[in-house]
Amino acid sequence: MKHADLTETQLASETVFQGGLLRVKRDTVRLHDGNTATREYIEHNGAVMVIPVLNSGELLMERQYRYAMSRHCLEFPAGKIDAGEEPLATGRRELLEETGYVAGEWTYLATIHPTVAYSTERILVYLARGLSHEGGQLDDGEHLETLHLSLEALLELVRSGEITDVKTVIGAFWLEKLRRGEWPGGPVLP
Amino acid sequence: MKHADLTETQLASETVFQGGLLRVKRDTVRLHDGNTATREYIEHNGAVMVIPVLNSGELLMERQYRYAMSRHCLEFPAGKIDAGEEPLATGRRELLEETGYVAGEWTYLATIHPTVAYSTERILVYLARGLSHEGGQLDDGEHLETLHLSLEALLELVRSGEITDVKTVIGAFWLEKLRRGEWPGGPVLP
Repeated sequence: MKHADLTETQLASETVFQGGLLRVKRDTVRLHDGNTATREYIEHNGAVMVIPVLNSGELLMERQYRYAMSRHCLEFPAGKIDAGEEPLATGRRELLEETGYVAGEWTYLATIHPTVAYSTERILVYLARGLSHEGGQLDDGEHLETLHLSLEALLELVRSGEITDVKTVIGAFWLEKLRRGEWPGGPVLP
Repeated sequence: MKHADLTETQLASETVFQGGLLRVKRDTVRLHDGNTATREYIEHNGAVMVIPVLNSGELLMERQYRYAMSRHCLEFPAGKIDAGEEPLATGRRELLEETGYVAGEWTYLATIHPTVAYSTERILVYLARGLSHEGGQLDDGEHLETLHLSLEALLELVRSGEITDVKTVIGAFWLEKLRRGEWPGGPVLP
């Protein structure tokens, strides 16, 4: 099928807000039909999510309070990529910092985009196996707790609407595809 | 399992940026351990995604250029909830505006949160069946095109990394669960 070229070309770009966490850009663009328009979006350095599979087959997850949601969320470990950091290094760092675990085997699974309409954020998803606990995790205050969950229990929490975080929902579905062997080319999982 | 209460309580809130599209808030919060912290986030009115299933069983999808991604994206129809608008009305409006279709049967499926770390956005997901084309869609310039796709083809584009938009990825997995009858309580699909 022949698709239309709807590309929008940058004419000008400025930073209109720089906070402690968020940077907002406002660009002027030329549309495919020759008109101009304004595009406002968050500039984000990207993030990494880790799906840690314990030797028991259970998944290592975190529970933390998400202020913007006004609720506690159950999620796979994840965090932002530091400037100049390799994504795999981000995965190792976040897994250790947040859970105290290190993994012997890392497998890249996918890249997803949470907010195509207003943020450049991408999330790289890695599978982490061969886990061992090194401890020495969270510093003072402990703002999250970790727990072990079977994939079946996780999917039931997705179905029932208790887990709504998109990266975690996609991680659960993706893992099920791999475990069932329904996605050729992916890693074979126990 | 007994979980810790990690609730963060608002002490102060201010709007630190108001653009044409994005509003950034910065709140001071009291943490569960008594310390205070700053939380910066996008205040968003929410959105609706529609999974339109044609009478043939194929899915009605859109392709548009996403400037923040620097690429064309294949997505289910979706759009922001206007102030005071009922989510179902948003779904009907966006489906008609973007594709020219109306649906006779609407079923609520799920609510997902794309960015738990820095946006209040929630996306309500509806299934739309009994579709008929009323036409009279996009106005001048046409910034998107529509296409029909089987669920199998859609899932293959997810697996291969061509479709990365989280709401669309979750819609595809969710629909497969319903079609296979693996999620009790959900609508029975042909």
